[in-house]
Amino acid sequence: MSHVPVPPSVPGILGLFAFRPETAGPLNMLAEALLRGPSSLSRGERELIAAFVSSRNGCRFCCDSHAAFAAHQLDGGYEVVEAALEAPDTAPVSNQLRHLLAIAAEVQRSGREVRPETIEAARVAGADDVAIHDTVLIAAAFCMFNRYVDGLATTPAPDRAAYDQMAELITTAGYVGASAAMADG
Amino acid sequence: MSHVPVPPSVPGILGLFAFRPETAGPLNMLAEALLRGPSSLSRGERELIAAFVSSRNGCRFCCDSHAAFAAHQLDGGYEVVEAALEAPDTAPVSNQLRHLLAIAAEVQRSGREVRPETIEAARVAGADDVAIHDTVLIAAAFCMFNRYVDGLATTPAPDRAAYDQMAELITTAGYVGASAAMADG
Repeated sequence: MSHVPVPPSVPGILGLFAFRPETAGPLNMLAEALLRGPSSLSRGERELIAAFVSSRNGCRFCCDSHAAFAAHQLDGGYEVVEAALEAPDTAPVSNQLRHLLAIAAEVQRSGREVRPETIEAARVAGADDVAIHDTVLIAAAFCMFNRYVDGLATTPAPDRAAYDQMAELITTAGYVGASAAMADG
Repeated sequence: MSHVPVPPSVPGILGLFAFRPETAGPLNMLAEALLRGPSSLSRGERELIAAFVSSRNGCRFCCDSHAAFAAHQLDGGYEVVEAALEAPDTAPVSNQLRHLLAIAAEVQRSGREVRPETIEAARVAGADDVAIHDTVLIAAAFCMFNRYVDGLATTPAPDRAAYDQMAELITTAGYVGASAAMADG
Protein backbone atom coordinates (compact mmCIF):
# COMPACT_ATOMS: atom_id res chain seq x y z
CA MET A 1 0.00 0.00 0.00
CA SER A 2 1.29 3.43 -0.95
CA HIS A 3 2.69 5.69 1.80
CA VAL A 4 0.30 8.48 0.69
CA PRO A 5 -3.38 8.13 -0.25
CA VAL A 6 -3.88 7.37 -3.96
CA PRO A 7 -7.10 6.46 -5.81
CA PRO A 8 -7.80 2.69 -5.84
CA SER A 9 -6.66 0.82 -9.01
CA VAL A 10 -4.54 3.70 -10.28
CA PRO A 11 -1.06 2.14 -10.60
CA GLY A 12 2.46 3.53 -10.16
CA ILE A 13 3.15 7.20 -10.72
CA LEU A 14 -0.42 7.84 -11.93
CA GLY A 15 -1.77 7.58 -8.39
CA LEU A 16 0.86 10.08 -7.20
CA PHE A 17 -0.14 12.47 -9.99
CA ALA A 18 -3.70 12.34 -8.65
CA PHE A 19 -2.51 12.98 -5.06
CA ARG A 20 -0.29 15.96 -5.97
CA PRO A 21 -1.37 17.65 -9.22
CA GLU A 22 0.90 20.63 -8.42
CA THR A 23 4.00 18.54 -9.19
CA ALA A 24 2.30 16.23 -11.73
CA GLY A 25 2.07 19.11 -14.23
CA PRO A 26 5.81 19.88 -14.46
CA LEU A 27 6.71 16.15 -14.29
CA ASN A 28 4.50 15.40 -17.30
CA MET A 29 5.83 18.41 -19.20
CA LEU A 30 9.37 17.18 -18.51
CA ALA A 31 8.53 13.68 -19.80
CA GLU A 32 6.89 15.17 -22.90
CA ALA A 33 9.86 17.44 -23.75
CA LEU A 34 12.47 14.80 -22.96
CA LEU A 35 10.90 11.67 -24.47
CA ARG A 36 8.72 13.06 -27.26
CA GLY A 37 9.90 16.60 -28.09
CA PRO A 38 12.42 17.49 -30.84
CA SER A 39 15.71 15.58 -30.45
CA SER A 40 18.33 13.84 -32.56
CA LEU A 41 17.19 10.58 -30.89
CA SER A 42 13.96 8.88 -31.95
CA ARG A 43 11.09 8.50 -29.48
CA GLY A 44 11.63 4.74 -29.38
CA GLU A 45 15.34 5.15 -28.59
CA ARG A 46 14.58 7.57 -25.76
CA GLU A 47 11.95 5.27 -24.26
CA LEU A 48 14.44 2.40 -24.41
CA ILE A 49 16.98 4.44 -22.40
CA ALA A 50 14.21 5.18 -19.85
CA ALA A 51 13.28 1.48 -19.57
CA PHE A 52 16.96 0.48 -19.33
CA VAL A 53 17.68 2.80 -16.39
CA SER A 54 14.42 1.79 -14.68
CA SER A 55 15.44 -1.86 -15.05
CA ARG A 56 18.80 -1.15 -13.40
CA ASN A 57 17.00 0.64 -10.56
CA GLY A 58 14.65 -2.34 -10.16
CA CYS A 59 11.55 -0.16 -10.63
CA ARG A 60 8.93 -2.52 -12.03
CA PHE A 61 6.25 0.04 -12.93
CA CYS A 62 8.63 2.38 -14.78
CA CYS A 63 10.54 -0.45 -16.46
CA ASP A 64 7.44 -2.26 -17.71
CA SER A 65 5.63 0.90 -18.81
CA HIS A 66 8.57 2.45 -20.69
CA ALA A 67 9.51 -0.96 -22.15
CA ALA A 68 5.98 -1.00 -23.61
CA PHE A 69 6.32 2.59 -24.86
CA ALA A 70 9.67 1.66 -26.48
CA ALA A 71 8.32 -1.58 -27.98
CA HIS A 72 5.42 0.31 -29.57
CA GLN A 73 7.78 2.78 -31.24
CA LEU A 74 10.89 0.74 -32.16
CA ASP A 75 11.35 -1.63 -35.08
CA GLY A 76 11.56 -5.11 -33.59
CA GLY A 77 9.16 -4.36 -30.70
CA TYR A 78 9.44 -6.24 -27.39
CA GLU A 79 12.10 -8.62 -28.71
CA VAL A 80 14.61 -5.80 -29.26
CA VAL A 81 13.65 -4.05 -26.00
CA GLU A 82 14.11 -7.20 -23.92
CA ALA A 83 17.44 -7.96 -25.57
CA ALA A 84 18.68 -4.42 -24.82
CA LEU A 85 17.61 -4.57 -21.18
CA GLU A 86 19.32 -7.91 -20.71
CA ALA A 87 22.57 -7.39 -22.65
CA PRO A 88 22.95 -3.81 -23.91
CA ASP A 89 26.45 -4.44 -25.33
CA THR A 90 25.26 -7.03 -27.82
CA ALA A 91 21.63 -5.98 -28.39
CA PRO A 92 20.37 -5.67 -31.99
CA VAL A 93 20.24 -1.86 -31.85
CA SER A 94 22.47 0.71 -33.57
CA ASN A 95 26.09 1.01 -32.50
CA GLN A 96 25.32 4.59 -31.39
CA LEU A 97 22.46 3.47 -29.15
CA ARG A 98 24.65 0.78 -27.56
CA HIS A 99 27.14 3.52 -26.64
CA LEU A 100 24.37 5.77 -25.30
CA LEU A 101 23.15 2.91 -23.09
CA ALA A 102 26.71 2.69 -21.71
CA ILE A 103 26.49 6.39 -20.74
CA ALA A 104 23.06 5.79 -19.18
CA ALA A 105 24.47 2.90 -17.12
CA GLU A 106 27.14 5.22 -15.69
CA VAL A 107 24.61 7.98 -14.92
CA GLN A 108 22.39 5.41 -13.15
CA ARG A 109 25.22 4.74 -10.69
CA SER A 110 26.14 8.43 -10.20
CA GLY A 111 26.73 11.58 -12.23
CA ARG A 112 30.32 11.37 -11.05
CA GLU A 113 30.71 7.94 -12.65
CA VAL A 114 30.39 9.28 -16.21
CA ARG A 115 33.79 8.96 -17.88
CA PRO A 116 35.01 11.22 -20.71
CA GLU A 117 35.99 8.06 -22.63
CA THR A 118 32.39 6.81 -22.58
CA ILE A 119 31.18 10.16 -23.95
CA GLU A 120 33.92 10.17 -26.58
CA ALA A 121 33.09 6.62 -27.72
CA ALA A 122 29.45 7.65 -28.23
CA ARG A 123 30.59 10.65 -30.29
CA VAL A 124 32.76 8.40 -32.48
CA ALA A 125 29.66 6.24 -33.00
CA GLY A 126 27.80 9.32 -34.29
CA ALA A 127 26.14 10.87 -31.22
CA ASP A 128 25.80 14.67 -31.41
CA ASP A 129 25.58 17.15 -28.50
CA VAL A 130 21.80 16.81 -28.21
CA ALA A 131 22.00 13.00 -28.15
CA ILE A 132 24.64 13.15 -25.37
CA HIS A 133 22.62 15.72 -23.42
CA ASP A 134 19.31 13.94 -23.77
CA THR A 135 20.80 10.56 -22.82
CA VAL A 136 22.26 11.97 -19.60
CA LEU A 137 19.08 13.85 -18.68
CA ILE A 138 16.78 10.89 -19.49
CA ALA A 139 18.95 8.58 -17.37
CA ALA A 140 19.03 11.18 -14.56
CA ALA A 141 15.27 11.79 -14.78
CA PHE A 142 14.50 8.09 -14.39
CA CYS A 143 16.68 8.00 -11.28
CA MET A 144 14.06 10.51 -10.04
CA PHE A 145 10.91 8.84 -11.39
CA ASN A 146 12.03 5.39 -10.13
CA ARG A 147 12.74 6.72 -6.62
CA TYR A 148 9.41 8.58 -6.57
CA VAL A 149 7.41 5.51 -7.59
CA ASP A 150 9.20 3.02 -5.31
CA GLY A 151 9.99 5.41 -2.43
CA LEU A 152 6.25 5.98 -1.92
CA ALA A 153 5.52 2.24 -2.36
CA THR A 154 3.05 2.46 -5.24
CA THR A 155 1.54 -0.65 -6.84
CA PRO A 156 2.52 -1.71 -10.39
CA ALA A 157 -0.08 -2.38 -13.10
CA PRO A 158 -1.46 -5.96 -13.19
CA ASP A 159 -0.14 -7.19 -16.57
CA ARG A 160 1.39 -6.37 -19.94
CA ALA A 161 -2.04 -5.64 -21.40
CA ALA A 162 -2.36 -2.71 -18.99
CA TYR A 163 1.03 -1.31 -20.09
CA ASP A 164 0.15 -1.81 -23.76
CA GLN A 165 -3.01 0.20 -23.18
CA MET A 166 -0.94 3.01 -21.60
CA ALA A 167 1.41 2.83 -24.60
CA GLU A 168 -1.51 3.40 -26.99
CA LEU A 169 -2.45 6.53 -25.05
CA ILE A 170 1.11 7.88 -24.70
CA THR A 171 1.95 7.38 -28.38
CA THR A 172 -1.23 9.11 -29.51
CA ALA A 173 -1.99 11.78 -26.86
CA GLY A 174 1.51 12.33 -25.35
CA TYR A 175 2.37 12.50 -21.64
CA VAL A 176 0.46 15.64 -20.76
CA GLY A 177 -2.69 14.56 -22.60
CA ALA A 178 -2.55 10.94 -21.51
CA SER A 179 -1.92 11.48 -17.81
CA ALA A 180 -5.27 13.13 -17.26
CA ALA A 181 -7.06 10.25 -19.01
CA MET A 182 -5.08 7.59 -17.13
CA ALA A 183 -5.51 9.21 -13.70
CA ASP A 184 -9.23 8.46 -14.03
CA GLY A 185 -8.35 4.74 -13.85
CA MET B 1 34.94 21.34 -19.38
CA SER B 2 31.32 20.40 -19.91
CA HIS B 3 30.49 17.53 -22.28
CA VAL B 4 28.10 19.82 -24.20
CA PRO B 5 28.69 23.46 -25.21
CA VAL B 6 27.60 25.91 -22.51
CA PRO B 7 28.12 29.68 -22.37
CA PRO B 8 31.41 30.69 -20.69
CA SER B 9 31.17 31.61 -16.97
CA VAL B 10 27.66 30.21 -16.58
CA PRO B 11 28.08 27.61 -13.79
CA GLY B 12 26.39 24.29 -13.07
CA ILE B 13 22.88 23.61 -14.29
CA LEU B 14 22.49 27.17 -15.58
CA GLY B 15 24.75 26.47 -18.56
CA LEU B 16 22.70 23.36 -19.36
CA PHE B 17 19.50 25.44 -19.23
CA ALA B 18 21.03 27.72 -21.86
CA PHE B 19 22.03 24.76 -24.05
CA ARG B 20 18.61 23.06 -23.92
CA PRO B 21 15.78 25.51 -23.13
CA GLU B 22 13.19 22.87 -24.12
CA THR B 23 13.92 20.90 -20.95
CA ALA B 24 14.95 23.93 -18.83
CA GLY B 25 11.33 25.14 -18.76
CA PRO B 26 9.79 22.03 -17.13
CA LEU B 27 12.82 21.58 -14.82
CA ASN B 28 12.43 25.11 -13.47
CA MET B 29 8.67 24.68 -13.11
CA LEU B 30 9.30 21.48 -11.14
CA ALA B 31 11.78 23.22 -8.83
CA GLU B 32 9.32 26.08 -8.32
CA ALA B 33 6.36 23.81 -7.46
CA LEU B 34 8.42 21.48 -5.30
CA LEU B 35 10.64 23.92 -3.39
CA ARG B 36 8.53 27.09 -3.31
CA GLY B 37 4.88 26.16 -4.03
CA PRO B 38 2.25 25.43 -1.35
CA SER B 39 3.35 22.64 1.04
CA SER B 40 3.22 21.75 4.71
CA LEU B 41 7.02 22.17 4.73
CA SER B 42 8.61 25.62 4.76
CA ARG B 43 10.76 26.75 1.82
CA GLY B 44 13.86 26.64 4.02
CA GLU B 45 13.13 23.06 5.13
CA ARG B 46 12.65 21.95 1.53
CA GLU B 47 15.89 23.60 0.40
CA LEU B 48 17.70 21.89 3.27
CA ILE B 49 16.46 18.47 2.07
CA ALA B 50 17.69 19.37 -1.44
CA ALA B 51 21.14 20.40 -0.14
CA PHE B 52 21.34 17.28 2.05
CA VAL B 53 20.69 14.86 -0.82
CA SER B 54 23.08 16.80 -3.09
CA SER B 55 25.74 16.52 -0.39
CA ARG B 56 25.26 12.74 -0.20
CA ASN B 57 25.55 12.55 -4.01
CA GLY B 58 28.75 14.63 -3.87
CA CYS B 59 27.34 17.26 -6.25
CA ARG B 60 29.17 20.45 -5.35
CA PHE B 61 27.14 22.92 -7.44
CA CYS B 62 23.75 21.66 -6.22
CA CYS B 63 24.88 21.25 -2.62
CA ASP B 64 26.45 24.70 -2.35
CA SER B 65 23.62 26.47 -4.17
CA HIS B 66 20.76 24.84 -2.24
CA ALA B 67 22.70 25.19 1.03
CA ALA B 68 22.75 28.93 0.29
CA PHE B 69 19.03 28.93 -0.58
CA ALA B 70 18.31 27.07 2.70
CA ALA B 71 20.58 29.35 4.77
CA HIS B 72 18.80 32.43 3.41
CA GLN B 73 15.39 31.07 4.42
CA LEU B 74 15.99 29.16 7.68
CA ASP B 75 16.43 30.57 11.17
CA GLY B 76 20.05 29.96 12.09
CA GLY B 77 21.38 30.36 8.53
CA TYR B 78 24.53 28.57 7.41
CA GLU B 79 25.31 27.28 10.91
CA VAL B 80 22.15 25.18 11.03
CA VAL B 81 22.51 24.07 7.39
CA GLU B 82 26.10 22.90 7.86
CA ALA B 83 25.21 21.06 11.07
CA ALA B 84 22.34 19.26 9.29
CA LEU B 85 24.51 18.23 6.34
CA GLU B 86 27.19 16.89 8.65
CA ALA B 87 25.11 15.15 11.33
CA PRO B 88 21.38 15.13 10.48
CA ASP B 89 20.45 12.99 13.52
CA THR B 90 21.67 15.58 16.01
CA ALA B 91 21.25 18.83 14.03
CA PRO B 92 19.47 21.78 15.71
CA VAL B 93 16.35 21.41 13.53
CA SER B 94 12.86 20.19 14.44
CA ASN B 95 12.39 16.55 15.37
CA GLN B 96 10.10 16.22 12.33
CA LEU B 97 12.77 17.56 9.95
CA ARG B 98 15.35 15.15 11.38
CA HIS B 99 12.98 12.28 10.54
CA LEU B 100 12.34 13.66 7.04
CA LEU B 101 16.10 13.81 6.44
CA ALA B 102 16.23 10.11 7.39
CA ILE B 103 13.65 9.40 4.65
CA ALA B 104 15.66 11.51 2.19
CA ALA B 105 18.81 9.53 3.02
CA GLU B 106 17.01 6.28 2.13
CA VAL B 107 15.60 7.72 -1.12
CA GLN B 108 19.11 8.90 -2.08
CA ARG B 109 20.30 5.28 -1.98
CA SER B 110 17.26 3.87 -3.82
CA GLY B 111 13.47 4.12 -3.83
CA ARG B 112 13.47 0.50 -2.72
CA GLU B 113 15.48 1.39 0.39
CA VAL B 114 12.66 3.41 1.96
CA ARG B 115 11.39 1.48 4.98
CA PRO B 116 7.81 1.71 6.31
CA GLU B 117 9.30 2.24 9.81
CA THR B 118 11.13 5.36 8.63
CA ILE B 119 7.89 6.77 7.18
CA GLU B 120 6.00 5.85 10.36
CA ALA B 121 8.59 7.52 12.59
CA ALA B 122 8.23 10.76 10.58
CA ARG B 123 4.45 10.59 10.98
CA VAL B 124 4.79 10.14 14.75
CA ALA B 125 6.99 13.27 14.71
CA GLY B 126 4.16 15.19 13.03
CA ALA B 127 4.73 14.79 9.27
CA ASP B 128 1.51 14.76 7.22
CA ASP B 129 0.93 13.16 3.79
CA VAL B 130 2.15 16.20 1.88
CA ALA B 131 5.34 16.40 3.97
CA ILE B 132 6.05 12.71 3.31
CA HIS B 133 5.28 13.08 -0.41
CA ASP B 134 7.31 16.24 -0.87
CA THR B 135 10.31 14.85 1.01
CA VAL B 136 10.42 11.75 -1.20
CA LEU B 137 9.96 13.75 -4.42
CA ILE B 138 12.54 16.41 -3.44
CA ALA B 139 15.08 13.70 -2.59
CA ALA B 140 14.28 11.88 -5.86
CA ALA B 141 14.44 15.09 -7.91
CA PHE B 142 17.91 15.92 -6.58
CA CYS B 143 19.07 12.44 -7.58
CA MET B 144 18.14 13.72 -11.07
CA PHE B 145 19.53 17.27 -10.83
CA ASN B 146 22.81 16.02 -9.31
CA ARG B 147 23.31 13.41 -12.05
CA TYR B 148 22.46 15.99 -14.74
CA VAL B 149 24.96 18.55 -13.41
CA ASP B 150 27.82 16.08 -12.76
CA GLY B 151 27.09 13.64 -15.61
CA LEU B 152 27.64 16.46 -18.11
CA ALA B 153 30.73 17.69 -16.20
CA THR B 154 29.62 21.27 -15.59
CA THR B 155 31.76 23.71 -13.58
CA PRO B 156 30.67 24.89 -10.10
CA ALA B 157 30.43 28.58 -9.18
CA PRO B 158 33.67 30.16 -7.89
CA ASP B 159 32.75 30.96 -4.28
CA ARG B 160 30.03 31.40 -1.64
CA ALA B 161 29.42 34.97 -2.75
CA ALA B 162 28.23 33.66 -6.12
CA TYR B 163 25.80 31.25 -4.42
CA ASP B 164 24.58 33.99 -2.08
CA GLN B 165 23.85 36.13 -5.14
CA MET B 166 21.82 33.27 -6.67
CA ALA B 167 20.00 32.90 -3.34
CA GLU B 168 18.94 36.54 -3.47
CA LEU B 169 17.47 35.99 -6.92
CA ILE B 170 15.76 32.67 -6.10
CA THR B 171 14.19 33.97 -2.89
CA THR B 172 12.83 37.05 -4.62
CA ALA B 173 12.06 36.01 -8.23
CA GLY B 174 11.62 32.22 -7.81
CA TYR B 175 13.14 29.50 -10.01
CA VAL B 176 11.34 30.31 -13.24
CA GLY B 177 11.99 34.04 -12.99
CA ALA B 178 15.55 33.74 -11.73
CA SER B 179 16.82 31.18 -14.23
CA ALA B 180 16.42 33.53 -17.16
CA ALA B 181 18.33 36.26 -15.32
CA MET B 182 21.10 33.87 -14.21
CA ALA B 183 21.53 32.27 -17.64
CA ASP B 184 22.76 35.65 -18.84
CA GLY B 185 25.80 35.18 -16.56
